[in-house]
Amino acid sequence: MSSPSQPVLFHNPHSRACMTRALLEELGIPFEIRVIDFRKDEQRSAEYLAINPMGKVPALRHDGTVVTETVAIYIYLADRFGAAKLAPALDDPDRGSYLRWLVFYAACFEPAVGDRAAKRPPVPRSQSGYGDFESVMTTVNDQLAAGPYLLGERFSAADVLWANALRWITGFKLIDSNPQIEAYMKRVLDRPAQLRAVAADQELAEQMGLAG
Amino acid sequence: MSSPSQPVLFHNPHSRACMTRALLEELGIPFEIRVIDFRKDEQRSAEYLAINPMGKVPALRHDGTVVTETVAIYIYLADRFGAAKLAPALDDPDRGSYLRWLVFYAACFEPAVGDRAAKRPPVPRSQSGYGDFESVMTTVNDQLAAGPYLLGERFSAADVLWANALRWITGFKLIDSNPQIEAYMKRVLDRPAQLRAVAADQELAEQMGLAG
Repeated sequence: MSSPSQPVLFHNPHSRACMTRALLEELGIPFEIRVIDFRKDEQRSAEYLAINPMGKVPALRHDGTVVTETVAIYIYLADRFGAAKLAPALDDPDRGSYLRWLVFYAACFEPAVGDRAAKRPPVPRSQSGYGDFESVMTTVNDQLAAGPYLLGERFSAADVLWANALRWITGFKLIDSNPQIEAYMKRVLDRPAQLRAVAADQELAEQMGLAG
Repeated sequence: MSSPSQPVLFHNPHSRACMTRALLEELGIPFEIRVIDFRKDEQRSAEYLAINPMGKVPALRHDGTVVTETVAIYIYLADRFGAAKLAPALDDPDRGSYLRWLVFYAACFEPAVGDRAAKRPPVPRSQSGYGDFESVMTTVNDQLAAGPYLLGERFSAADVLWANALRWITGFKLIDSNPQIEAYMKRVLDRPAQLRAVAADQELAEQMGLAG
């Protein structure tokens, strides 16, 4: 595999793009930040829409390719920078569970939490992509109780995603936290790379004149 | 890489699991089908919930691991059965776009179409995982217009997913079709493997006594 060049993260410190910065820090690789300032509506500028027509951060540019969607960026980066061992190899028995937890986040957990936050009445299970909120939360809580990580003893990029997601989702009180969610978040978010990511985004927010 | 064993698909011919059968046919590998009968509520049986606590098909069992979530299964299978060349390799310049289109389907397209189908009022862009329905459809239509495939000249597993998804989504009139969607679907769904998948599921539905 050729030596990969330095990734560029299109980022805003007050957005879900922080989840991608958290992975870049955990991978321990050099990367570049390009700030997209929402106050200037830069996410809807022609320049940025050419990068991500969805007008959202994060986006990642690497080796002449653009990757969007947090979970796609996670799978891409953890495989590409494999020396960090944050992704099971393609023929590793953990590969299936690893992909399952990453995609489950995007396909089920975020939509379920979003519907709940917007106080939308549930649609019938058969018409819903995720089934129902209770099944989603049971699935998550049972797995965290089994722990210590989503793949058991093995820490992976999936934990970086989930712990960072649970931080903002419980922070905004979109779901109720519980002792096992708290213990899981602490286990992951107290890692030096995670503390570095938070400190760096806090500093960036201050430089931009954004409130904490 | 060790020679992978035969995958088992937990399946129902009247469900989104058909999208996974379509990929298995396209990969050209032997696989086994286990039917989950919704009339007997088998998707909520203790036995099946142990496989997928979400109580949904598809699920895939392979080499002692269970993978759930259609997009996770797609990424898993197309990488694992790499001889079929349906997935760009980890260091291929197309890898980022490939993952982007697969995850965009689960993270944005399905939720956007689901909200539209349920006639739910849009939530503010900043609170929505996918932004807004119009951005999603513009992103898709622009890419299909560029064509012929999502990765340009290169056919991939992402096209199997999208063409099969567009078939049921336009079939149920959840979105309006248009000439470029029709041309794209025809390009992919007329492939021999795709015709085989449809015929096999039709036969299975008849065996089960389900209406066509």
